[in-house]
Amino acid sequence: MSELRRDPITGRWIITRTMTGIDTPSEFFHPRKMFEGIECPFCKGNENLTEPEIFAFRKEGSKPDDRNWAIRVFRDKYPILHTDSGIKKKGVGDAFLYDMINGFGVHEIIVETSKHITNFAELDIDQMKMVLMTYRIRLNKLRGDKRLKYGLVYRNQGYDPVVSLPHSHSQIIALPVVPKSVKEELVTSRNYFREKQRCLFCDIIKEERGYAARIVDEGDNFIAVIPYAPRFAFETHIYPLKHQSDFTKFPDSDLDELSKMIKNIFYKITKLLNNPPINLVLHTSPFKIPEEDYWDTIVQDYHWHIEIMPHAVPERGFEFGADFFITPPSPEISAKFLREVS
Amino acid sequence: MSELRRDPITGRWIITRTMTGIDTPSEFFHPRKMFEGIECPFCKGNENLTEPEIFAFRKEGSKPDDRNWAIRVFRDKYPILHTDSGIKKKGVGDAFLYDMINGFGVHEIIVETSKHITNFAELDIDQMKMVLMTYRIRLNKLRGDKRLKYGLVYRNQGYDPVVSLPHSHSQIIALPVVPKSVKEELVTSRNYFREKQRCLFCDIIKEERGYAARIVDEGDNFIAVIPYAPRFAFETHIYPLKHQSDFTKFPDSDLDELSKMIKNIFYKITKLLNNPPINLVLHTSPFKIPEEDYWDTIVQDYHWHIEIMPHAVPERGFEFGADFFITPPSPEISAKFLREVS
Repeated sequence: MSELRRDPITGRWIITRTMTGIDTPSEFFHPRKMFEGIECPFCKGNENLTEPEIFAFRKEGSKPDDRNWAIRVFRDKYPILHTDSGIKKKGVGDAFLYDMINGFGVHEIIVETSKHITNFAELDIDQMKMVLMTYRIRLNKLRGDKRLKYGLVYRNQGYDPVVSLPHSHSQIIALPVVPKSVKEELVTSRNYFREKQRCLFCDIIKEERGYAARIVDEGDNFIAVIPYAPRFAFETHIYPLKHQSDFTKFPDSDLDELSKMIKNIFYKITKLLNNPPINLVLHTSPFKIPEEDYWDTIVQDYHWHIEIMPHAVPERGFEFGADFFITPPSPEISAKFLREVS
Repeated sequence: MSELRRDPITGRWIITRTMTGIDTPSEFFHPRKMFEGIECPFCKGNENLTEPEIFAFRKEGSKPDDRNWAIRVFRDKYPILHTDSGIKKKGVGDAFLYDMINGFGVHEIIVETSKHITNFAELDIDQMKMVLMTYRIRLNKLRGDKRLKYGLVYRNQGYDPVVSLPHSHSQIIALPVVPKSVKEELVTSRNYFREKQRCLFCDIIKEERGYAARIVDEGDNFIAVIPYAPRFAFETHIYPLKHQSDFTKFPDSDLDELSKMIKNIFYKITKLLNNPPINLVLHTSPFKIPEEDYWDTIVQDYHWHIEIMPHAVPERGFEFGADFFITPPSPEISAKFLREVS
């Protein structure tokens, strides 16, 4: 069982597992130590080692879960989120100080190639295009469930193979809340637009094109820049030059340029920094949530973008990408363990 | 040369170095590789390896920088912040879209013992009390400079000894801005108080004492709990039970209990989780900044606390503690390096 919980001080939602039957806390820390010494379940021929596929680019006439695929999507084998039991929201505590939603959501794995490639830069352009098309297809599918408010696409690369499979893959977590860092961007963009009648991101792009010193790559439709105030050394953001709030809506004909740019950034970072861990996060507009006060202007004031974050010291990427934390052992179980240390 | 820069999208301030004369980006990533194979500069007898001391608890009659000390404070040897050249604030870019302050601030190291101890839990209670007293003394000293707005006390423990010295020490970074995560807490506390005429943290403490399951340790004056929605597994916060916004102002007689509680939490986490990296961050009220709209109510609505964060996978602690990032290579230099990768 898992729960989404909101911290009343920061407004940050986190996911925690309220498991039972776990005897030692080390199991919380290495829930995937089972990867040690096993065959790669993401490789061609090992389809039976994953959950059944829910989407794929595959050879015409081939069958789901057979080996003739180029991109394959399935649910995480140990999902911390489910949609099985419906969504339940409640206040927690004597004064309802805390907010809780049961572990409602979807966690999908997108295997980006049937070959055992470990760096995004090694994909060829057609394969990269299929990955980006898969993001769009899955996001549009997931938004069909009106209980889901946000689909966060992200990639962790170069982490300890015991806890994160090295075979090139992306992940989508679809949530019943908007992660804090995206909500902040939405609110800031809305306020900026209301004041100035211009998109904040469009102004940033204009400034960066004029200044030029922070540009890493530029094409007809996209620009890659290091932000003025980055969180990580060599952090690079990719923006569409034309104003566009939703990643699923720009013309398919632009995918080729975007694919080349992503591949190029991963190649450059890998070469320059000797293959560091790299996270990628896609920030796009939320699924339709008319009850939120930023929704009314979202099409005119939000601007989707991709954030690529290399890490000299490996942090955990999802947390940084979304300001949205996954802490498997519940606070209650953790406190019990700590109390019992003599 | 360094700069504080504000990201216009998130409002997060970061520190970046705009160095020159650096040929390879790896030097940005391991600026302290000089620690490799050298003697510990924090040990008794090696006082000449650090900057001159600016404060110490030392034997009566002994002299600054001699070996008869119990706690020793000095400036960081490679400080990213200075106060030498005064404070300069300016808008950056054609439309002043970005905000910059020169690298104005103070970075102090507090060596917590003259013995080569690596875990906070190994300090004896009297030594721990002196550490906490040193926090109070240095914060009160630093607030004397009216250009500084916040003193962030933090500790990184258990990181790679090549990049972070293992000898038990704390750090204080005093800044001309309030770090984002603290500002968020201040604003949330103010809004909560305005609505309810009660302190949010006091309400949280009441809830936690009633529920009990998340309590790790409790005394007459302090309580240690795992928050309802923690960011990290086994993250533990210590709150004073009595309402108090400023860490430097509670009675000295309470320091004994607080020291025991901190030592106990570090001991428990170390034993339970097999000596993981642990960060500690002190969140206390800012230095006096009457121009900020949260200042007017700060004494009644903020509640200082200590956050202790163990890390199964080592992230960088300062960033998580403050939502305030240090990215040594400037975006301009980073972009240049990346552009030049062929």
